[in-house]
Amino acid sequence: MTQSVRVQNFMVSADGYGSGEGQSFERPFGHADPSAFFSWAGATAHWPTRTEPGGTYGLDDYITRDYRHNIGAEIMGRNKFGPHRGPWENYDWQGWWGDEPPFRTPVFVLTHYERPSITLGETTFHFLNVTPKDALARAFEAAEGKDVRIGGGVATIREFLDADLIDRMHFAVAPVELGRGERLWTSPDELVDRFHLERVPRPSGIVHHFFWRK
Amino acid sequence: MTQSVRVQNFMVSADGYGSGEGQSFERPFGHADPSAFFSWAGATAHWPTRTEPGGTYGLDDYITRDYRHNIGAEIMGRNKFGPHRGPWENYDWQGWWGDEPPFRTPVFVLTHYERPSITLGETTFHFLNVTPKDALARAFEAAEGKDVRIGGGVATIREFLDADLIDRMHFAVAPVELGRGERLWTSPDELVDRFHLERVPRPSGIVHHFFWRK
Repeated sequence: MTQSVRVQNFMVSADGYGSGEGQSFERPFGHADPSAFFSWAGATAHWPTRTEPGGTYGLDDYITRDYRHNIGAEIMGRNKFGPHRGPWENYDWQGWWGDEPPFRTPVFVLTHYERPSITLGETTFHFLNVTPKDALARAFEAAEGKDVRIGGGVATIREFLDADLIDRMHFAVAPVELGRGERLWTSPDELVDRFHLERVPRPSGIVHHFFWRK
Repeated sequence: MTQSVRVQNFMVSADGYGSGEGQSFERPFGHADPSAFFSWAGATAHWPTRTEPGGTYGLDDYITRDYRHNIGAEIMGRNKFGPHRGPWENYDWQGWWGDEPPFRTPVFVLTHYERPSITLGETTFHFLNVTPKDALARAFEAAEGKDVRIGGGVATIREFLDADLIDRMHFAVAPVELGRGERLWTSPDELVDRFHLERVPRPSGIVHHFFWRK
């Protein structure tokens, strides 16, 4: 089986933004309210940080539980790893996710400022100052035959799209407008020259967008 | 994690039949045309018996590829295993699926006429003359912590529903009427006293029905 490169469960606003303006420690998504983006997934039984019992087992749960299925590595941009910019002042920051990050695979963080790898629970973060193509070669090797997830943020997904390295994508488009921030697209139709696009609207107002390479 | 009992990707006609009348070797679904039931899944990239390249990666593919995910055993009725009725005349019949059946787990076949187990590829069929509850205990043990699929046919699903042994179900309801055969329900609403029901209509005319226990 060929290894695929996938974007999964990435949240986008109705006007095409993947996060708001002004990311900080207190506001990882900038001025955007993350609950409007995550509530569809947070309601499902397989949401990884679910602490209460219950949760739905309908369509949205298929999508949530597919997140880890056959994924052997993730590539993310530095802004997904943390709110810092420029050289590291120290190595105290270990990501947003505490002692047991939800990835449970090798994760490659693209950054101009490399630092030593960190292992937290079942996840190891490596820091690479390389091109998307070279990062993908490293991730494929680490994934041991499984697929590689491009975890975002927006700038990282755009770089991999520009290099034509992505096979399949799932975006959950939320019924909110952000107006400013990190923009993924003006319209998803910009991608239909290279990808099939299937839209699945949900009663919650979320519209799942599935793309796969033509 | 608790082991769950699941029905997955079971096809039903708009008037509630899971198979037609008059099952035979030539017509495993009786007078029903199976293509009307299976085409939604056959079009997907992960359909297990897909021989051509291509196939879709949209919503229906999530459902198709979930079929084997975290399943450790299946329980099926004898009519799913073969068209014979009454005592076995010999043991030549080894199921409909050739040398590599798509289950790839232990499979427990409920029958009044036991026979020796058969291993084909990664699948082993065991034949049991026991109650649903006892069959489930055997299947849970064989599944080694994973879930158990109730594979059908209709009579077997009904028996497990009557014994209140099922946690989650997915049915793909096709836009065809059969008029006669093995009937699962008059209306899916018969089950909403015990189960949440989410309906997801598709452009193909298929309506996915997801049930999970209240």
